[in-house]
Amino acid sequence: MSDTNVYIPGPQRPTQADARTLLADYCAAIDDLRLSDWVAMFTDPCLYRITTRANLARGMPLSIMLCDTKAMLFDRVEAIEQANLFEPHVTRHVLSDSRVIDAKGLVLSVQTSFIVVRTMVASGEMMLFAAGKYLDEVVSEGGRTLFRSKTVVLDSSLVDTLIALPL
Amino acid sequence: MSDTNVYIPGPQRPTQADARTLLADYCAAIDDLRLSDWVAMFTDPCLYRITTRANLARGMPLSIMLCDTKAMLFDRVEAIEQANLFEPHVTRHVLSDSRVIDAKGLVLSVQTSFIVVRTMVASGEMMLFAAGKYLDEVVSEGGRTLFRSKTVVLDSSLVDTLIALPL
Amino acid sequence: MSDTNVYIPGPQRPTQADARTLLADYCAAIDDLRLSDWVAMFTDPCLYRITTRANLARGMPLSIMLCDTKAMLFDRVEAIEQANLFEPHVTRHVLSDSRVIDAKGLVLSVQTSFIVVRTMVASGEMMLFAAGKYLDEVVSEGGRTLFRSKTVVLDSSLVDTLIALPL
Repeated sequence: MSDTNVYIPGPQRPTQADARTLLADYCAAIDDLRLSDWVAMFTDPCLYRITTRANLARGMPLSIMLCDTKAMLFDRVEAIEQANLFEPHVTRHVLSDSRVIDAKGLVLSVQTSFIVVRTMVASGEMMLFAAGKYLDEVVSEGGRTLFRSKTVVLDSSLVDTLIALPL
Repeated sequence: MSDTNVYIPGPQRPTQADARTLLADYCAAIDDLRLSDWVAMFTDPCLYRITTRANLARGMPLSIMLCDTKAMLFDRVEAIEQANLFEPHVTRHVLSDSRVIDAKGLVLSVQTSFIVVRTMVASGEMMLFAAGKYLDEVVSEGGRTLFRSKTVVLDSSLVDTLIALPL
Repeated sequence: MSDTNVYIPGPQRPTQADARTLLADYCAAIDDLRLSDWVAMFTDPCLYRITTRANLARGMPLSIMLCDTKAMLFDRVEAIEQANLFEPHVTRHVLSDSRVIDAKGLVLSVQTSFIVVRTMVASGEMMLFAAGKYLDEVVSEGGRTLFRSKTVVLDSSLVDTLIALPL
C-alpha cells in the first residue's frame, strides 16, 4: 500500500488570532526574562529592527538596531545576560488591538500600538519607558506562528535601546 | 424584467467586533495624524464630546468640548492643522477591552478604558497625557461602522484638551 | 408526568472569552468605584492575593495582602469606604491580552499583563500607579464566571497597596 493519499497540508497564512497569540507570547517572554524564547519566535533569516517614527516618516532606512538572523538575536541576548551592561530592570508590555494591514500569500501584516513600563529591580522605581507601534509580518512555519519581520517604531527618539531589554 | 427580487439588506446593528475594529482605526487615525480619516468615522449629525468623570458623576451637562456635526469636527481639524497653536506632538492610544452596555435597535453602545501617551516631537519627551473611558454609540451606515456618538470621559480635570490632538 | 428527562447541564469550564468578560467587568467595577460588585466576582472561599514578582521569583509565600473569604473582601471594601484612610482617588486599569496557562477540569487559568493609572480627585494629578500581571483561576458557578483565585503580581515592590483601591 502506498501513502500517496495521505493529505499533508501546506503552510497557511496565520489568522489575526494567531498573530495575537504570538504577540502575547512575545511580550510575556520578554517581561518574564525568557530571552531564548524571545529569539525562538523569529524565522531565520528574519528582520528585527527598531526605528523611530521620525525616521520612518522621512523614509530614512536608518535603524537604531537591526538584526537579520537568529544568530544576531542570540548575540543580543548574550550581551544582555552576560555583559551585564545595565542596571537590572524588568519590563511590562501592554498592547492595544492589532489592525490587519495586509494579507497576501502566506504573510499576514499587522500593526499594533504598545507601551512599555520599566521597573528598576533595586529601587522599585517605575517609569513609562517606551510607546509606539509594531509593524509585524507573521508567517506559519512547521505548525508554529513566527515573526518573519518585526519593526518597532518608537514615538520618541529619546528611548535608550542599547541598555534595555528587547522591545 | 424587473429587479424586484434583488435583495437589498437593510442596515444592521454592528457587532462588538465591528466596534473594536472601528475603535482601533479611530486610534490609528489620530496617532498617525490622519485627522480627515478621524472625521470620516462619525455620522452627520453626530456627537463628539469630552467631559470629566467628576462632571458626569454630578449629572452636569457641562462638556469641555462638544461637536455635533461633521463641519464642527472639520473646523477642529483645521484649527489643529493650520493655526499651529500648540507645540508639535504625537499621541499613542492604548485601549483595554470594550464592554457592551446596550444593544437596542440599530445601535450598539460600548464602553472602553483608554490611556494616551503624548510625545513632544522636538524634545522626544514622553508623558502620560490622559486616562479615562470612551462611551460610544456605534451604528452601521452604507456598509461602514461609524460613531453616532462618542463621549470621552477623562479621569482628570487637568487635561488640556484645547491644545491637543483629538482624544 | 415526570421531569426526569429535563436536562440540567452541569458546570462547565469557562472559555477564554468568558475570562476576558470577567476581567473587563472586574476592572470596570473598581474604576467605577462599585466595590460590592468587585466582591461579587469571587467564589467563597476564594483567594485574592497581592504579591511582587521578586517574592514570587524567590518562591516565597509572602503576600502584601491576602483574602481567602468573601467576608475578608467585604472587610477590605468597608475599610476603604468608611475609614477614609486615604486621599480620594480613582483608578484606570488597562489590560493586554490574556494567555491561557492551564485548562484542567472546571478551572481555566489565565495570565494577563496590566497597568493602573491613578488620578487624585482633588488635584487631578495623574500617575502610573502599578504595573504587573494577574494570575487568575476562573470557574463557572450558577451560570456566572467567577475568580476562584486571583494573584496580583506587581513589578515593583514600592506600590503602596494599603492605602489604595483594589488592584
